Amino acid sequence: MSTVYAALVHHPVRDRDGQTATAAVTNIDVHDIARSSHTYGLRGLFVVTPIDAQRALVERIFAHWREGAGKRRMPHRSEALAICQHAPSLAEVQARIAAEHGCAPRLVATAARSNLAREVSSFEALRLQLAAADGAPWLIVFGTGHGLADEVLNAADVLLEPIRGRGDYNHLSVRAAAAIVFDRLFGVR
Amino acid sequence: MSTVYAALVHHPVRDRDGQTATAAVTNIDVHDIARSSHTYGLRGLFVVTPIDAQRALVERIFAHWREGAGKRRMPHRSEALAICQHAPSLAEVQARIAAEHGCAPRLVATAARSNLAREVSSFEALRLQLAAADGAPWLIVFGTGHGLADEVLNAADVLLEPIRGRGDYNHLSVRAAAAIVFDRLFGVR
Repeated sequence: MSTVYAALVHHPVRDRDGQTATAAVTNIDVHDIARSSHTYGLRGLFVVTPIDAQRALVERIFAHWREGAGKRRMPHRSEALAICQHAPSLAEVQARIAAEHGCAPRLVATAARSNLAREVSSFEALRLQLAAADGAPWLIVFGTGHGLADEVLNAADVLLEPIRGRGDYNHLSVRAAAAIVFDRLFGVR
Repeated sequence: MSTVYAALVHHPVRDRDGQTATAAVTNIDVHDIARSSHTYGLRGLFVVTPIDAQRALVERIFAHWREGAGKRRMPHRSEALAICQHAPSLAEVQARIAAEHGCAPRLVATAARSNLAREVSSFEALRLQLAAADGAPWLIVFGTGHGLADEVLNAADVLLEPIRGRGDYNHLSVRAAAAIVFDRLFGVR
């Protein structure tokens, strides 16, 4: 069974001016990224926000799709939501994974910006590392808003290279970016 | 400049029982797939629905992001929406592309199901064909609802192999699937 987790982080992230901020939870991010995570065999997805009322909203989204009307209408979505948890901070996510596996996860940060202050890992290099993980936990972190704050990028064990399309335009949604990252790291071709 | 287009089709698609139906337009599909299309250098994205009121809704979504408040708040989204059109049918999309290029586009259908009634093309084979297209137009078609109706799959020049993740679960959103297809066909690694 996979020991790779993902986290969708709403704080600390950048706002449009590059300042550290807290982004609001977007309903569709939760079930889109849950479906992509489960399709690519990740062990879990954490939705991270420090705001109590936002975690209560996330809990309601989980409950809607896991039980009740959502489950009856779309049973496969229930299966994807079953791998999700919410947490107040990335530190709490790391602590929970460490408690389950006996060691802290290696942390992979993602960013779309090209002006990054530290060395990045290629997708291929990370794909090989993950394939050789052999039971050690990993955590791939995605930022909402305008991307993860520098403190997360700097603290990560690995900073993954940005996704490049064609040309200069590079404004994928976090939903699309997460799907592409999972496909590049875990997809079967 | 690329001569590859995409279409997001709301009719004819399958409903959950496999019957041919018309799916409702989802706001977020339009700008997510527009952003992914533009990031991967596609020439245009067509949003296809036969329902007049739904095309009027699509027109409002376009206008919101191209002009007005949406453009001021998120200027890069305006750039992605600039490559979008709506159309009442896939035949109309093919006719418009033919009018612009002097020949009909080769049509690529996508499907998530594994029980397909005809031979599929690998991503790698299609990637090579598209790279060699040399000015001839192509149209990649995505179905909303539970996927494109058989009549579209059967009429296409190419049926693309389904995306495979890990294991049996394969319920990506059309937003995630489109992003992955573009990355596999046009991504730079």
